[in-house]
Amino acid sequence: MSLALNKEELADYLAQVFPQVHKDFVVEDLTEDTIRMRLVVAERHLRPGGTVSGPAMFSLADVSVYAMVLARKGRQSLAVTTNSSMDFLRKPEGAADMIAECRLLKLGRSLAVGDVLMFSDGSDKPVARASMTYSIPPQGSAAAAFG
Amino acid sequence: MSLALNKEELADYLAQVFPQVHKDFVVEDLTEDTIRMRLVVAERHLRPGGTVSGPAMFSLADVSVYAMVLARKGRQSLAVTTNSSMDFLRKPEGAADMIAECRLLKLGRSLAVGDVLMFSDGSDKPVARASMTYSIPPQGSAAAAFG
Amino acid sequence: MSLALNKEELADYLAQVFPQVHKDFVVEDLTEDTIRMRLVVAERHLRPGGTVSGPAMFSLADVSVYAMVLARKGRQSLAVTTNSSMDFLRKPEGAADMIAECRLLKLGRSLAVGDVLMFSDGSDKPVARASMTYSIPPQGSAAAAFG
Amino acid sequence: MSLALNKEELADYLAQVFPQVHKDFVVEDLTEDTIRMRLVVAERHLRPGGTVSGPAMFSLADVSVYAMVLARKGRQSLAVTTNSSMDFLRKPEGAADMIAECRLLKLGRSLAVGDVLMFSDGSDKPVARASMTYSIPPQGSAAAAFG
Repeated sequence: MSLALNKEELADYLAQVFPQVHKDFVVEDLTEDTIRMRLVVAERHLRPGGTVSGPAMFSLADVSVYAMVLARKGRQSLAVTTNSSMDFLRKPEGAADMIAECRLLKLGRSLAVGDVLMFSDGSDKPVARASMTYSIPPQGSAAAAFG
Repeated sequence: MSLALNKEELADYLAQVFPQVHKDFVVEDLTEDTIRMRLVVAERHLRPGGTVSGPAMFSLADVSVYAMVLARKGRQSLAVTTNSSMDFLRKPEGAADMIAECRLLKLGRSLAVGDVLMFSDGSDKPVARASMTYSIPPQGSAAAAFG
Repeated sequence: MSLALNKEELADYLAQVFPQVHKDFVVEDLTEDTIRMRLVVAERHLRPGGTVSGPAMFSLADVSVYAMVLARKGRQSLAVTTNSSMDFLRKPEGAADMIAECRLLKLGRSLAVGDVLMFSDGSDKPVARASMTYSIPPQGSAAAAFG
Repeated sequence: MSLALNKEELADYLAQVFPQVHKDFVVEDLTEDTIRMRLVVAERHLRPGGTVSGPAMFSLADVSVYAMVLARKGRQSLAVTTNSSMDFLRKPEGAADMIAECRLLKLGRSLAVGDVLMFSDGSDKPVARASMTYSIPPQGSAAAAFG
């Protein structure tokens, strides 16, 4: 139940494996079973009307749970998303950054599950809820990850 | 943001509208946006092997969110489940009662969303996670509730 | 891509492992990747108002996908539900039997996914949609099934 | 049960309301309750490793169901996504276009539900399954759309 990577190591590793997008995501806080992640909102995350898009919120939830799994399992670990469910609750507030509060509910041998509440930065009303399941391949084989 | 029914009024109303099953469910705690509900586990809630069944956990999650909506909207309100998602995380512990911790994430004009963590009584490891969406018909017309 | 159990073998096996409830469920049709299952609706499947309850529909979807996995993997196989999502679309028609049309979307080494449309017998309007994920333990160990 | 917009009118309208991304999505077929949509895969839809990303598949599912609702309800209609569930079943085949086969399961007064199977172009094995719920505001008021 301890972290394999601390907050700085996790941020460095995400920057290395996601060079295109790592600047979009900032690890703000990390504990043994929670992570807070910021989506630094830019034009490409907005839909017509100027609010954060559904795909951008999906990405934020997905990256948050993935980062939490990495922080616990370590750099060598492979994991692929096998299920997501999301509820879109409120209109995001303009182009404010989006904050994800993620809890790791389960970290098993082959499955990890996390849930996420997302907020417009500065608001305490959740904009969206997500849960994500990751499949973790047995021998670190990417081909096996889809179960 | 205040309760239309307190804990006792809510329990009385559930007993009245669900005479067959109300003894299965006990409201243990109620705030403006959370409810704790106990499933008093009996033989009919178990599957082969003696652990609480999936349908019993579905019922518990569904009743918890419904009760939370009633507590806020009042007795006259109608609401039907339109969506559920559940993650089954761990094997329940034998035939222990099941405790649901439910948060109301949204209570809108026509939709309510709650999420629920379920635990075997006495354990702090979640057995299942659920989210439930309820549709609330505009004029209290049951026929309209399915949206 | 062939069946390990034919329709009769599957029905016999379900009767053996689910002695309490097997009469509720009838396998009506089985192919290599689809199954049609009937829920023989009785008083205990109804909610106040006399329509089929959410937990009864959850059971039907769950049993359908489980039976499909058994038909392909054979009797010795173990599988536990790890995720479900359901949309409740219309009010079921009174106490008519419920028919589930299930497709197996994936049968992997460790995960199986099926989706299900449910209809009131005699109607072609779907009452509910479900998808179910099953985790299949590696060495047939029940303890390992939760991933 | 007839279409408010035919295939060409729908494509024109999507181009008008989504000027940034409409070239990503091509309406390939449209009936009264199904739509086939192509995601023309480009570099920005890929994740490290060169396969189509989860957010790109989310977008495809979301646009498909939204387009189906528009085709039935007409240009003036407003709709916001309130729920999504997705199962990721297989690794997409390289950078092939992604084809979504969408069925409209319900088109109610205030809620619409569609489900979607997604395939790498040229393959008949589903890569992902999605279901999407849209809330349709009563008087065409965008502010009311979140229910």
